[in-house]
Formats: sequence, structure tokens, C-alpha cells
Amino acid sequence: MKLNFKAIISILGLLLMLNGGFMLLCLPVSLYFRDGEWRSLLMASLLTFGVGAAGYFLTKSKTNGGLSKRDGYLVVSLGWLCMSAFGTLPYILSGEIPNFTDAFFETLSGYTTTGASILNDIEAMGEGILMWRSLTQWIGGMGIIVLTVAILPLLGIGGMQLFVAEAPGVTPDKLKPRITDTAKRLWLIYLGLTVLEAILLKLGGMSLFDAVNHSLTTMATGGFSTRQASIAYFTSPFIQYVIIVFMFLAGTNFTLTYFALHGQWKKVFNNEEFKYYFGFTLAFGLLIAAVVYMVSDHTVEVAFRNALFQIVSIVTTTGFVTADYTSWAPLLTVVFFMFMFIGASAGSTAGGVKVVRHVILLKNSILELRRQIHPNAVLPVRLNSMAISSDITFNIMAFMIIYFMVFAMGATLLSALGYDFNTSIGAVATCLGNIGPGIGKVGPMDNFASISAAGKWILSFLMLLGRLELFTVLILFTPYFWTKH
Amino acid sequence: MKLNFKAIISILGLLLMLNGGFMLLCLPVSLYFRDGEWRSLLMASLLTFGVGAAGYFLTKSKTNGGLSKRDGYLVVSLGWLCMSAFGTLPYILSGEIPNFTDAFFETLSGYTTTGASILNDIEAMGEGILMWRSLTQWIGGMGIIVLTVAILPLLGIGGMQLFVAEAPGVTPDKLKPRITDTAKRLWLIYLGLTVLEAILLKLGGMSLFDAVNHSLTTMATGGFSTRQASIAYFTSPFIQYVIIVFMFLAGTNFTLTYFALHGQWKKVFNNEEFKYYFGFTLAFGLLIAAVVYMVSDHTVEVAFRNALFQIVSIVTTTGFVTADYTSWAPLLTVVFFMFMFIGASAGSTAGGVKVVRHVILLKNSILELRRQIHPNAVLPVRLNSMAISSDITFNIMAFMIIYFMVFAMGATLLSALGYDFNTSIGAVATCLGNIGPGIGKVGPMDNFASISAAGKWILSFLMLLGRLELFTVLILFTPYFWTKH
Repeated sequence: MKLNFKAIISILGLLLMLNGGFMLLCLPVSLYFRDGEWRSLLMASLLTFGVGAAGYFLTKSKTNGGLSKRDGYLVVSLGWLCMSAFGTLPYILSGEIPNFTDAFFETLSGYTTTGASILNDIEAMGEGILMWRSLTQWIGGMGIIVLTVAILPLLGIGGMQLFVAEAPGVTPDKLKPRITDTAKRLWLIYLGLTVLEAILLKLGGMSLFDAVNHSLTTMATGGFSTRQASIAYFTSPFIQYVIIVFMFLAGTNFTLTYFALHGQWKKVFNNEEFKYYFGFTLAFGLLIAAVVYMVSDHTVEVAFRNALFQIVSIVTTTGFVTADYTSWAPLLTVVFFMFMFIGASAGSTAGGVKVVRHVILLKNSILELRRQIHPNAVLPVRLNSMAISSDITFNIMAFMIIYFMVFAMGATLLSALGYDFNTSIGAVATCLGNIGPGIGKVGPMDNFASISAAGKWILSFLMLLGRLELFTVLILFTPYFWTKH
Repeated sequence: MKLNFKAIISILGLLLMLNGGFMLLCLPVSLYFRDGEWRSLLMASLLTFGVGAAGYFLTKSKTNGGLSKRDGYLVVSLGWLCMSAFGTLPYILSGEIPNFTDAFFETLSGYTTTGASILNDIEAMGEGILMWRSLTQWIGGMGIIVLTVAILPLLGIGGMQLFVAEAPGVTPDKLKPRITDTAKRLWLIYLGLTVLEAILLKLGGMSLFDAVNHSLTTMATGGFSTRQASIAYFTSPFIQYVIIVFMFLAGTNFTLTYFALHGQWKKVFNNEEFKYYFGFTLAFGLLIAAVVYMVSDHTVEVAFRNALFQIVSIVTTTGFVTADYTSWAPLLTVVFFMFMFIGASAGSTAGGVKVVRHVILLKNSILELRRQIHPNAVLPVRLNSMAISSDITFNIMAFMIIYFMVFAMGATLLSALGYDFNTSIGAVATCLGNIGPGIGKVGPMDNFASISAAGKWILSFLMLLGRLELFTVLILFTPYFWTKH
């Protein structure tokens, strides 16, 4: 089957139109704050919308047939790239980030909900542009929800079909990129939680602007802040606790939140991924709090808050910062570095590997030891009391192996550009995991401004890979994908 | 089936008797050099032999039936531990390493052919003791050969049954721990190459004592040196090239060396693992030589020799050092750290993951992308033109995942003891991979003397895990192993 390029362009056009619409939302902000950038925003919006509309209407009537799986892979990668390319326009036209590489890095970091930033003086930016910056993450989070519930299960990526119980019926080879009812329901939760967090942050003493921006980037597990010092700027314990709670919610499978809202708590607490996610976060939060308490002169509450904040921020791949965790103790640098390979729940906006994959890998490792003694015994991994087919376990292991391979190659490339050991592996781990802060020179108190253009492109590619569950992007690099099928 | 403890004790006894015999070999060395330690060596030898003989003869007549697979697992782990426990005697009785933790670390580092050392002044040690130190590695290498060709294939560990073409027929559940003909042939090659290298090193200007010791530890891919400065002490290019060649040979599947000696070169050059092992080593040798040439004021030859030496030393998990690779360039620290996860060929004395596993993982990763597009296509990994069953690929992936899990846990534990990030991950990577030098405070110019007792026990456990292909040891920690079967 040939690739259906017309249908692909039509969808990309639709995405750009949507994107142009979102840009328009920044216009009133810019006008209200008189930051003088409304013209750039308007122009960016019209350009994006215009190109999108052209693509959409020129191809729409001519498309016939649906999308094949192969079209699906292409749409997903191109969608993120296309949106990032046009998403740079507000930065470039306003002159806030004049360099395309920088603007692209910042935009892709937004859409992939990574939160790695090249900005050295965030407070100097216009409010309209900052709003756009936060919106890229929120849009990215929205995209991830539809990707997870409506697209990835059809593409069969890394067992994603398993983890979202509510996913619509799978049609074998034809992909209908309609926004499913499930996606709509989850979007509503996403929107609702964003509004709720903004209200709470406002009540906690943030300005409305800061409150909205931070709620947008919290729910996307993005981590862009309107402040150079990130959440360390907001010293209110109430604000920090609110953000901890909402980061945790953003890293929870949205389907479970849906169940919780409908009073089906049993479904939530019987969910194995949630149990591990919750237990792991709490256990390490307490453990790290104890370490922080010992090595610092903080009170118990401050130590607990900082520890919990940082672990939730890293595990949910948000990347907000209240303190420099790399300065706490050597143990914690190692621990936080390892956490970059965890990722929160599947079906949330979090990036990275995801807890459920680790649960399956862990269970399978133990079973594999048993299988060693009795090679003929059939011992499938069980998740939520259901046996998982060995194909899926196989696929998840392959995912993890590829994840490490990509990590190793990325770190080697970055170090080849001259960055030291810690910076190289930290930058790669954090970008591949869509987190934000790394270790070394891209640690929690630093940013990615000092990374060279080549480094930024490498890291951009890694952000995209990590966000789109590796396979979706890598598959495009196999000759097999492009040969006739 | 109950565990056959009597048979197990009988084998352990045999191993100790053998060990006691090897200790006796150090006696003439000690007497010749008049290092005053012959009494300690004799006592150690008699004690080891005596305990072994008691164990052997008290149980031998009473054993009935062979060993089950479960017995096999126990024998392997206990064998290495038992030998290490008694192998400390020469160090302790002579007072050269009076502390049991230190002596055990040094001995296990020997038997596992790791080469991590706690000695700060090697030249001050008596020759008899140094000889014993080198012999522990050589005995360990001999043990690994029999493990690989005669035991692991029967236990079905990580696809090892595949990689040694010459392995004897597999009997399903009964393990006959007889020394197979294959093992005997390979031992002969091992011994022959050791003698040949010793002669060449002597011709190159080493003293006979140094020549023998270094050839013993080269062929075992161990890396213990009689000099604190390791091979940097021997500035002769001839000596360094000889060691490069023999490290490479020690990291080559001994079965292939056997074929080569019988003129069957085609079998050697058609072997995929060998092709990757050779190509990888040479390619990175040249690449690193280029980097070293650029960042140093070495001549081309010196840069090439140092680069090739270090990469062969790390990839073969030997661990000899001619230069501080962590000081060359940030790139090379990352590269050498990654190399610690490679390991040389299966069927050699090298530890670590092994090239063949990486080859299969790499091929499977590419195939998994294809399987994504056509989930119903049967696409097995092919090695040496043969399709590999998905069970074996599955097992190898599980091996790799467990390897990373063990690495992560080890690094976390070590950092919890207060070691910095680089030291923690470096020490764990190098001990788990049975290499020797790490990065950070256990880098190529340092040693493990400064590591605390707790750290040494953790690292000892990791050396054993890595050497015995993980499963063999880990399986003993599952409750399942100890329940009735």
C-alpha cells in the first residue's frame, strides 16, 4: 500500500490551524501587559493558520481511503515536527529568540513537554511570548493524550494497547484518526484540572498570569516556568504543595482519574501501575527527605517538601525545581539520575519509560529466573491479575533495550562535542525522558543555553524520540518502512 | 527433587584440593626469591588441601545419582565463593593482606578475573604471594572455560548454549560435571597461549617472574600486574603490543582459536561474533587513536598504541593500564564507560555482557521495528545464518535488563555509602563487568583501597554476579529455588 501523503498533509494542515488558533490566545495577554509583541503573535498566528488551511483544504477533498499504519507513524512524527517548526514563529518574529536552532529547541521542548530551556533571563521576556511558551507544553500534553488513547494502541507500540483500558476497539490495519470519545473525556479532565490548579495557585498568592502559566505546564508535566528560578521563586509552602499534588495527578493515568471522578475508587487502587507509582514516589520521598534532613539544616517540613517536590518533579518528568538536588548528597545525584529512567504512568502526560513497563520488566526478570529452572513451564507476567502475552513482554524488553542504546549513542555524541561526562549523560537522560533539568552543567540550577547548536539538534531529536515512544520515530529510519508493502 | 548436598560438598572438596595444589606451585617461587613467606604458603596449601580432601572423601562414597540443574547452580556459586574464601589464606597467613575483607576482595577479584585491587604498594609484596595473586586469575579463567563449555549450556543461561558450537550434547535435567573433551582441548590452548606469551614477554625484556605473572593474568583477562603502575611500567612497545595481541586472543572464543590452530580459518572469519568483536575493536582503536593524537603531543605510533591498548584492555575486560584514559578527553571517559558494558566474546575468559549478546540485541531491535509494521510476520534473529529461537532472544533481553537493574541498584548502594557519582557508577560498572579500573576515584591510576568494607562487599558480590552470568547467582535468591520441586 502506498503512503497516503494527501491524507497526511491534510491532518498536518489541521494541526497547524489548531496551532494558529492557540497562538491567537496569547494576543489578549500581550495586549493586556502591553509587552509590544502582539503584532508578532498575530503574524505568527495568521501565518501558521494560513499554511495549515492551505494544506488542509488543498488536500482534503482529494483524499480517499483512510490512513494505514505506516501513514500513522509518519503523521505522528511529522505532526510534532511541523508544529514545532511553526511554533518557533512567535519567538523569531518577536525577536525574543532570534536564532532558529534555539527557537526550535525551546518549541520542541515545549511540545514534547520536556521543559529543557535555553533562556537565561526568563523574566525579561514579554508576557505574550511566555504564555505561548507555556501553551506549547499544554498543547503537547493534549496531543499526548490523543496519541496514547487513540493512536499508539493501534500502532501497537510497547504494549501501550494494554495500559489504557478505555481505548476504543482496535481496527487491524486501518487507522481512523478521529478524536475518540475517550480522548474527549480525558481532555475534559485535563482542562478541568488545569483550571482548578490555576485557581488554587492564584489563591496561594501567585499572580493570575503566573498561576495560569504554571498550571498549564504542570498538567502537561512540562515544567516551563515564568521564573528563571523555577518554583524556588515561589517560597509559599501552599503553592509548592499544590504543584506537588498536581504534578502527581498529571503523572497519573488519566483514565484512573476519570474513574476516581466517577467514584470508582476500587478501580484506581486495584491498578498495579498506580500502586507502584504511588508507593515508589512516597517511599523515595520519605527516604530522600530523611537524607536531606540529615545533610542540611532544614526543618523536617522543609526537607520533606523539597524532597517530595524534587522526586515528584523528576518521576513525573515535569522538571520544576525548588532546590539543587545535585548539591544535596552524592547519593541523591545517583538516585535522581536513575529516576530519569522511570517516567510516571502510561496514559498520563508524562514522558520517559513509564512505571508500568518497569513493573512488567521487574516481574518478568523474576519469572525468567524461574523459567531457568523449569524451561518448559509457561509463566506469563501478570498485570492487574491478567496474563500478558509474551509478545508484549518481548516488545517491552526490546523498547527498554533500544532506550538504553539510544541513551548510549546520544551520550557518546554529546561527549564528542566536548561536554564532560556528567553533562553528557545528564543532558541525554533528561531530554530522552522529557524531564528538563539534568546533572552536570545542565543541572537543576542551569539551563541548555550553553549547549552548542549541534548539541541542541541532537537533544531535540532525543526529546522527540522519547516523547513518541521511540518506535514511532525510529521506524522511519528503517529502509523497510519506505519500501513497497 | 532434593538438593544433593553430599555431591555438592564432594565437588567443592575437589575444587579446594585443586586449589591447594596450585598454592604449592608458589612455594618454589617464594623459596627462590627468599621472600620469607614459604611457611605461610605451605600452611595455606595444606589447610586448603586438607579441608578439601576431608569434604571430598567424607562424601564421595555416599553420593548417589548425579547432579540436578538446581545442584548445578549451587555448585557454581559456592565453588567460586569457597575457593575465594580459602584463597585468602596466603594473604592472611603471610600478613601481606591481614584484613579478611581486603583479602577476600582481592581473591574474589582474582578468581572472577576482574583485576580490581586494594593494594597500594604491589612492589613491596613477596614474590610468592604475587605469584598466588596471578594464579587466582589464571585458575578463574580455567574455571570459566569449563563453566562456559560444560555447565552453562546445560543450565541454559542467556543463550550460552548457542555460542559454543563445540559444547557436548545437552542432557535435559541431569548435569554430569565431568570435564568434557572440549574443555580439555580448550584448556590446552589456554595453557599453550600462556606459555607462548610468557616466552615473548621474556624475550621483550621482562624478567621471567614478571613475564609469567603477566601472561597468567593476560590469558585470564584478569589484569593483575606485579607493578603498581600496571603495564605503564613496561615502556617497551614490543611488550605492550604482545600484551595487546594476547588480550585480544584471550577475549576471542577459544573454540575459534581451536579452529584457527587446525587451519579452519573460514570458520573463524565466518563467525559473526568474531567479526563484530574484531571490527569494533579495530574501528574504535583507530578512532580513539585519532582523538588521543589530537589532544596529546604523542607521536602517531604512541597514540595508536595507547588507544588500542586501552580499548582492547577494557573490551576484553582485562583491565591492564598504560595510560589514564579518563584524562584524555571527556569523550573518551564516556566511551570507555560505555565499553564497560560490552565484554568480549562468549567462550573466552572475558567477563561482562559479551559481544554476541549485543549483536543479537541490536539485530532484534531492528527487527522489532519491522515487526511493528507487520505484527504477524515471523522475523527471527539470525546469527551465523541460523535462526535463533525467540525464547533465546527473550532470555538475552531479560539478561540485559537484569544487568542494568543490578547496575542501578549497585550504583545506588555505593553512592549511599558516600561515594561521588562517577566513582559509584564507575566502580559498579567495572566490577560487574569483571574489568578492573573504573572512572572517578577508582579510575585507571587508582585502586579500590579507599573503598570502605561495606563497599568492598557490595562490589565483591557484583564481581561474582557478573562473572557467573547473573542468573546462576540470582536464582539462589528466589524463594522458588529453595521450595520443593
